[in-house]
Amino acid sequence: MNEDYIFEYLHMEMVEKFCSDPDTSSSLDEKDQVNLAIQKLERLGFTVGQRYIEKSTKDIPRFKDELETMKFVCKDVWLMIYRKQIDNLRTNHHGVYNLHDYRFRLLEQMSNSNQYKEQAPKYLAFPCGFLRGALSGLGYDCLVTAEITKMPACKFLIQILHS
Amino acid sequence: MNEDYIFEYLHMEMVEKFCSDPDTSSSLDEKDQVNLAIQKLERLGFTVGQRYIEKSTKDIPRFKDELETMKFVCKDVWLMIYRKQIDNLRTNHHGVYNLHDYRFRLLEQMSNSNQYKEQAPKYLAFPCGFLRGALSGLGYDCLVTAEITKMPACKFLIQILHS
Repeated sequence: MNEDYIFEYLHMEMVEKFCSDPDTSSSLDEKDQVNLAIQKLERLGFTVGQRYIEKSTKDIPRFKDELETMKFVCKDVWLMIYRKQIDNLRTNHHGVYNLHDYRFRLLEQMSNSNQYKEQAPKYLAFPCGFLRGALSGLGYDCLVTAEITKMPACKFLIQILHS
Repeated sequence: MNEDYIFEYLHMEMVEKFCSDPDTSSSLDEKDQVNLAIQKLERLGFTVGQRYIEKSTKDIPRFKDELETMKFVCKDVWLMIYRKQIDNLRTNHHGVYNLHDYRFRLLEQMSNSNQYKEQAPKYLAFPCGFLRGALSGLGYDCLVTAEITKMPACKFLIQILHS
């Protein structure tokens, strides 16, 4: 039997469900409907990320700084959720982080032709929310956006909101 | 770090989201709203189960009969999705199967007091649909229901629909 794909499948179907649910479409055109679905997926990701990090960090010591926290996310968290680590982490040392995943697990099941690139925001909303939720649980409010570089590679851009 | 809880968390939040989404509640009372959410979760489970089984059985030989298929579900599939096998499988040898899981993974995070028992249908809808979808993918149309015996134990009752 193949390895455990249940999370990917559940995520994929959830995206379809949210984007095609007639309940959410009332009086909205197609574009607004997709945008609403993306917002919902992002919020769902946020809650899951927050709860996940709360549970998974309860037995480990606090991180000494922002960069160490970010390394933990890129290594340990990514490995647990996406079964691989982030391939490249860059920062300007002023609260902006660029996480490059050369083979992002939630895009791997899709064709890697560029025709699906415009569908990408649907599939990156949950992971963006998850990342924002996880970092919020670790004490950092931030903005997270994502872009596909070349399927199935993608970049997550994190901007820490210092108060 | 703890083991991979992402599937449980995603499932838990999805249940909350489906049951509390104001879009689905328009003109429905609370009970109908929950019933609608349960139906949606069951259908989502069905699709995920069908796709999952399609992928995970593509390299294994066909099963010789219904019972062997059911054993595969109770052992291999359960282990992949819920990280343990079904504890007890019973059948009347006429298409009715009773799967007893003494510690069901999707109920484990909840308190095991009986006060949550009435919430159970919400949390068992997706797994029931998943089971129905998986069996459909393996060639068996069926009805699946579930009941909680004593938290976090539960029973899945499968009735194969012979044509």
